[in-house]
Amino acid sequence: MPKPATRPLVYVADEPAPADAHAISPARIRQAARRHPGVFSRVRIVHGPDPKALAEAEIVLGVSFNAATLRQDAPKLRWIQSLNAGVEKLAPKLDRSFKLTNASGLHGPKGGEYGLAAMLLLNHAVQRFVGSQRRRAWEPVFTTPIEGKTVVIAGAGALGQAVALQAKRHRMTTIGINTSGRKAPGFDRVVKARDMAKVLPKADFLVVTLPITPGTENLIDRKAIGLLPDHCGIVNLGRAKVMDYDAMVERLRAGTLAGALLDVFSPEPLPADSPLWDVPNLIVSPHAGVDDGSVYVERGLDIFAANLKRYLAGRKLDNLVDLDKGY
Amino acid sequence: MPKPATRPLVYVADEPAPADAHAISPARIRQAARRHPGVFSRVRIVHGPDPKALAEAEIVLGVSFNAATLRQDAPKLRWIQSLNAGVEKLAPKLDRSFKLTNASGLHGPKGGEYGLAAMLLLNHAVQRFVGSQRRRAWEPVFTTPIEGKTVVIAGAGALGQAVALQAKRHRMTTIGINTSGRKAPGFDRVVKARDMAKVLPKADFLVVTLPITPGTENLIDRKAIGLLPDHCGIVNLGRAKVMDYDAMVERLRAGTLAGALLDVFSPEPLPADSPLWDVPNLIVSPHAGVDDGSVYVERGLDIFAANLKRYLAGRKLDNLVDLDKGY
Repeated sequence: MPKPATRPLVYVADEPAPADAHAISPARIRQAARRHPGVFSRVRIVHGPDPKALAEAEIVLGVSFNAATLRQDAPKLRWIQSLNAGVEKLAPKLDRSFKLTNASGLHGPKGGEYGLAAMLLLNHAVQRFVGSQRRRAWEPVFTTPIEGKTVVIAGAGALGQAVALQAKRHRMTTIGINTSGRKAPGFDRVVKARDMAKVLPKADFLVVTLPITPGTENLIDRKAIGLLPDHCGIVNLGRAKVMDYDAMVERLRAGTLAGALLDVFSPEPLPADSPLWDVPNLIVSPHAGVDDGSVYVERGLDIFAANLKRYLAGRKLDNLVDLDKGY
Repeated sequence: MPKPATRPLVYVADEPAPADAHAISPARIRQAARRHPGVFSRVRIVHGPDPKALAEAEIVLGVSFNAATLRQDAPKLRWIQSLNAGVEKLAPKLDRSFKLTNASGLHGPKGGEYGLAAMLLLNHAVQRFVGSQRRRAWEPVFTTPIEGKTVVIAGAGALGQAVALQAKRHRMTTIGINTSGRKAPGFDRVVKARDMAKVLPKADFLVVTLPITPGTENLIDRKAIGLLPDHCGIVNLGRAKVMDYDAMVERLRAGTLAGALLDVFSPEPLPADSPLWDVPNLIVSPHAGVDDGSVYVERGLDIFAANLKRYLAGRKLDNLVDLDKGY
């Protein structure tokens, strides 16, 4: 990579201002600068909207810009740091001359816990109790501990690993599914996606943490869902289009799955007239499962600071996205 | 204790037959006999109802009898083994010449997990999501990990310890409340009940595992509930009358508590016209939180077998209940 300019301009593309939990505010950047001394002082930072500043920017932090015209709007731009882990909407539209880095790993601590929470509540029939509660019906279900049960995690990246590590705290068996079949931390074994039919019948729980890419769209299809045992509980923290929700809903309605907690939908927000709101034993979680309310942006800025240090030293960036693969 | 009769008669008081998960069936006793060779062969076992056998019984296993007339109905009876942990309905009615043992400890593995599951779901706002879902409303809440948060556990007995040990797996701070203030496994500290006002304001979660006794009735009263912080989540796995539910419900309706998962009510089943079914951020769990569906009776019979061995050897029984204290 060519040498960066002296005090390159970082354009913060964060408008219109999102909910406070996700705002890359000047105050948060000042705090990050204190956590990472000697890094932020080497760049100039301008908060958008400011088309003139964008035209001078070498680095963009955030994703509030017109991706289709960005090459023209920001002729000096080299690097975009997103604070999202999934960049499926952005990557296909970007000029191939840009480097895009994502915030993979940011969701680990909260997301891993949320995955465990979802499995535990499904294991202990809480999805049934909230359904009974709607009908004011006292319908006990006596369950067994989660210890020793098996979770199949589709996606063995940072989020999948965080869920697996939480599952290991409770002595579960963890089986990962990824493209390569390569072993990953927290997993007892990892199988290639094309071999998933071998492990899905063993799943007491299926947790999906996959991004949406051309390779993962509808990967958990009707056939895959048909292989899950009747007592299986499903959790989706990845992206909705990775799974065939229609096939899953048919089994939930038939009572041949234990339940599901879905955190992702297509489209979002889930429309008020969607049939998904009323499916038995399905809990609708409003895409809040993996973002940490207090430290989301802080962690994201830590990832940015580490990458900025690399950038200024002319080193390879972390979390670099393959713009063609989309992750 | 005087020497037991040669092959004393054990009367199984388990009628009318409860739900299968709780039945002390002949098949389960045969399995227990295989798990504990040389113990059950030294007694005669008769399943009730059988008034003649009851009149000859030295030992009663189970709680299906008329406690008020038991001294007359079973003149040779010395020892009653209950498979419940809470014996508040039985103990006050029993003749003081009987020895009563309970199944304290039986609920540990499942109950500890259920307590953790309840804390995790309250921590991650699932009680709010299921309320939003009823209204088909997309209302995300971004939460923070449970690691490092504080749980106050009222009751530091077997169930309380099981919850504390699960909480320590997630690096929570665990504070117990009991009568003596004596330290117990899993707890960072234990305070006396009369000092609980010092620790309740620190509670990110309050988990109640207390039995109901003259000493615990309304122990968590209106004043105690008033000391909990606004973000606190409440879990009750013990007995309903230990807490002032009215005071808790007022705070839930006012939005000044994060939520509650209650597994115990008075009376049970919770009547269909109870206002508790519709309290915001309250999850009604139908007294299913601590009983293990697959091994409840098996574990109970293991406790009985160990005690039976002690009885036949003339040794002191485990899990002996103080009939005046009620636990």
